[in-house]
Amino acid sequence: MKPLSVAVIGAGSWGSALSIVLNSNGHNVDLWMRSPEQLQEIKTTGINQKYLKDVTIPGAIKLSNELKTAIEGKEVVLLSVPTQSVREILRKIKPFLTKDQIVINVAKGLEVHSKLRISEIIHQELGAQPCAVVSGPSHAEEASRGMPTTVVSTSKEKKWAEFVQDLFSNEYFRVYTNPDIVGVELGGSLKNVIAFGAGISDGLGYGDNAKAALMTRGIREIARLGEAMGAEISTFSGLSGIGDLIVTCTSMHSRNRRAGILIGQGKSFEETLEEVGMVVEGIKTTESAYELSKFYNIEMPITEQIYNVIYKGVAPKEAVVQLMSRRMKNEMEEIVESKKLNW
Amino acid sequence: MKPLSVAVIGAGSWGSALSIVLNSNGHNVDLWMRSPEQLQEIKTTGINQKYLKDVTIPGAIKLSNELKTAIEGKEVVLLSVPTQSVREILRKIKPFLTKDQIVINVAKGLEVHSKLRISEIIHQELGAQPCAVVSGPSHAEEASRGMPTTVVSTSKEKKWAEFVQDLFSNEYFRVYTNPDIVGVELGGSLKNVIAFGAGISDGLGYGDNAKAALMTRGIREIARLGEAMGAEISTFSGLSGIGDLIVTCTSMHSRNRRAGILIGQGKSFEETLEEVGMVVEGIKTTESAYELSKFYNIEMPITEQIYNVIYKGVAPKEAVVQLMSRRMKNEMEEIVESKKLNW
Repeated sequence: MKPLSVAVIGAGSWGSALSIVLNSNGHNVDLWMRSPEQLQEIKTTGINQKYLKDVTIPGAIKLSNELKTAIEGKEVVLLSVPTQSVREILRKIKPFLTKDQIVINVAKGLEVHSKLRISEIIHQELGAQPCAVVSGPSHAEEASRGMPTTVVSTSKEKKWAEFVQDLFSNEYFRVYTNPDIVGVELGGSLKNVIAFGAGISDGLGYGDNAKAALMTRGIREIARLGEAMGAEISTFSGLSGIGDLIVTCTSMHSRNRRAGILIGQGKSFEETLEEVGMVVEGIKTTESAYELSKFYNIEMPITEQIYNVIYKGVAPKEAVVQLMSRRMKNEMEEIVESKKLNW
Repeated sequence: MKPLSVAVIGAGSWGSALSIVLNSNGHNVDLWMRSPEQLQEIKTTGINQKYLKDVTIPGAIKLSNELKTAIEGKEVVLLSVPTQSVREILRKIKPFLTKDQIVINVAKGLEVHSKLRISEIIHQELGAQPCAVVSGPSHAEEASRGMPTTVVSTSKEKKWAEFVQDLFSNEYFRVYTNPDIVGVELGGSLKNVIAFGAGISDGLGYGDNAKAALMTRGIREIARLGEAMGAEISTFSGLSGIGDLIVTCTSMHSRNRRAGILIGQGKSFEETLEEVGMVVEGIKTTESAYELSKFYNIEMPITEQIYNVIYKGVAPKEAVVQLMSRRMKNEMEEIVESKKLNW
């Protein structure tokens, strides 16, 4: 692929890390951030201290505070802002966009009030703009240091998913395409509920057995919800589903898991949010997931218990007891039913 | 369930842990072990020092060296011996078995020379004996201490899978049934290949992104092989598939992972086996998985690279480069194909 011009909107951990990946692939990157102080700091020290403190931002990456200059004339616009700010940012950049620029979203989440996926918000705000999504198991801290990382690109149109594959792929960053944009976006968003729950389990002092069971049964209930919402079940067994959940649940990089650990240890929500110090998507997402499960009438016992802990004051330990003492189940009820197995 | 009499054959970590679980459920347990020294040690100290050193074996568990007395008159015979010794043990216990005793296997693996699953070996050696299998994400060290643990029971006959569910279930040990005995047994066996690979990745100093990708793509290639061998794909997304793989890949309890780490760090096989000091099923299983992939003509790139590291002297780092530089792929080729998606 020839070098392209890319505007990266948002200099959080992931936006900064992907700027570094794109720069190392020979593309010309403008990295936009809202805060002039942050820009000044990176300019002076070469370091994005708050979000990606162990890596130098290469000098070839142009830093910017001006959406207009960042976006105009660029071939690619990469969106990396918190989910709840996506709509606002889209409205701000719309006047500068032309219809040949591809918008690639790399954030994960659902808009709280509308329950929309980010590609749906993009479609609402921008209409027929070319659009793709990147998701998968990818700590910014690792990708920015050139450690092997594998993600998924998806789009309603195959050519844009493959464009993203070409744009990012190199010897340490591998991109698989996936046609199921609904499943990829839901997996990346809803896994934060389970990551938060895994943190609670760790905080309670439970072990690997409990956490693995929570992750396995958790992604399964998310997959059932996803299927009701139009996704492919098997996407949730892929990189943007269980893959991302694994990374999130086993690493201290994850804010969602860290928040869960503190709750499991008995800290209050106020203490927890203060200590974690950044956006904890999992808490908002739990509410969305819970409401979606009611709307689509899908049984999601793990999500329900996490919701009870967050919003109904149920003690974490009591929530676990509730989960462990449910009616004894067949793991494969859907299969037995669909194949009419005499079993 | 009323208290039953259970013979547990094999006092390794898992056999000892399940004896403790069954004892805590009120059953009468005889725990058989081959070594008189081990028996003497447990009798004297209450501790199974080599295999489960942090837990006391309750005095109510009867220790035994005699297969005949351990088995005769028991309602349940639980097999917990290394896979490659199963056939030999079955031949020894056959004379003492009656046709109403249920044999429950809890070991994981494939017989190297025959590539048979353990339930198939049981069927070959014992004929129409009632038989069930337990598998899933379960470190003995945790289950034995009453930490929440969730497993799968399976059998060709639903009633025996549900019998096992009743036998083991309590407030910290939860059992799901699953009708797919082929998938459950293959998942538990073949995941050790990927666990060994995850260890190599850790040993090379790679991070969570690399390991999550390896696990996700690894279980998918195992599922494809499993399907060719008669299993349900979705079993591999369950507790005995990805669930067990997660536990194995994220914990230092796992011998397979520990062995991989040492290889990744550049140790030789001799040094590695000496340092790990117990059976490393993953090394033997890699050979079986590789041969099965050739026999069933299933592409298994991760298994192949791990095979190359073990048996062809390929450097671990070179194997990773090979994996990262493969032709760029669609994550869902099977789906696109089967649904004839125009994507």
